[in-house]
Amino acid sequence: MPISPKVSFRLAKRTDVPAIVQMLAEDELGSQRERFETPLPKAYYTAFDAIQADPNQELIVAELNGEVIGTLQLMYLPSLSYQGGTRAQVESVRVLQQLRGQGIGAEMMKWAIKRARKHGCHLMQLTSHKSRTDAHRFYEKLGFTKSHIGLKINL
Amino acid sequence: MPISPKVSFRLAKRTDVPAIVQMLAEDELGSQRERFETPLPKAYYTAFDAIQADPNQELIVAELNGEVIGTLQLMYLPSLSYQGGTRAQVESVRVLQQLRGQGIGAEMMKWAIKRARKHGCHLMQLTSHKSRTDAHRFYEKLGFTKSHIGLKINL
Repeated sequence: MPISPKVSFRLAKRTDVPAIVQMLAEDELGSQRERFETPLPKAYYTAFDAIQADPNQELIVAELNGEVIGTLQLMYLPSLSYQGGTRAQVESVRVLQQLRGQGIGAEMMKWAIKRARKHGCHLMQLTSHKSRTDAHRFYEKLGFTKSHIGLKINL
Repeated sequence: MPISPKVSFRLAKRTDVPAIVQMLAEDELGSQRERFETPLPKAYYTAFDAIQADPNQELIVAELNGEVIGTLQLMYLPSLSYQGGTRAQVESVRVLQQLRGQGIGAEMMKWAIKRARKHGCHLMQLTSHKSRTDAHRFYEKLGFTKSHIGLKINL
């Protein structure tokens, strides 16, 4: 049951890109790597088109009173492992700063989990920076287990 | 420079599926979740077809004297974050048990890193189970940083 009956979830449209980038940019870690300006760098739209062109990628937004207030990217990853099971992955989970702590993120994740289940995924995975201890608690409350180490390398 | 001049890397073919599943199954954690038998469960081939149908997914094998001796799955993930940057992800990295410790895994990873760079990826990411401390050292030697926590939930 959604916290607010007015919050709904849907696939992102091209016109949602600035609102999504704003949320990516206002994040503590994201602020150093995004460029939220007018006009928005074209690369964001190129990336949106690449996501839309791939049926295994879904950019999701949460909407409240016609305004985009949350986002996440849902990925369906085909794999030989787990007897050829498809796994779901979630990236770039954000809720508008002034609306945090109201359960919107949890509703959005539950919606994504349901969607991934419908798609036939046997597992959902995500990584979260070591410093985001609040986020770890948030995901553990949803039933996630901190079973893995996430390693990254800049190319 | 490859450890052995005879080891080469290429995209997997459908006929490689049994050799790949064998490597997934002989792994400590994988042994509990795979079914390496003759004939191979059809789901493995269905998954192979799904990987091949998605241009953002590449199943890679290492070959020695015409035999498949290593594998990994390379993914190209389009994303709005990092100013619309594409990230690479690696899953299901395996080397045939009796050939481990000879640098073949490192060569395979370096080959994948080079390939991801050519594809324009700005970052490569992967997760590794907490219990695989040897693997963590292996990835750190390659330049990876243990910056994230990997969380999973069964659906």
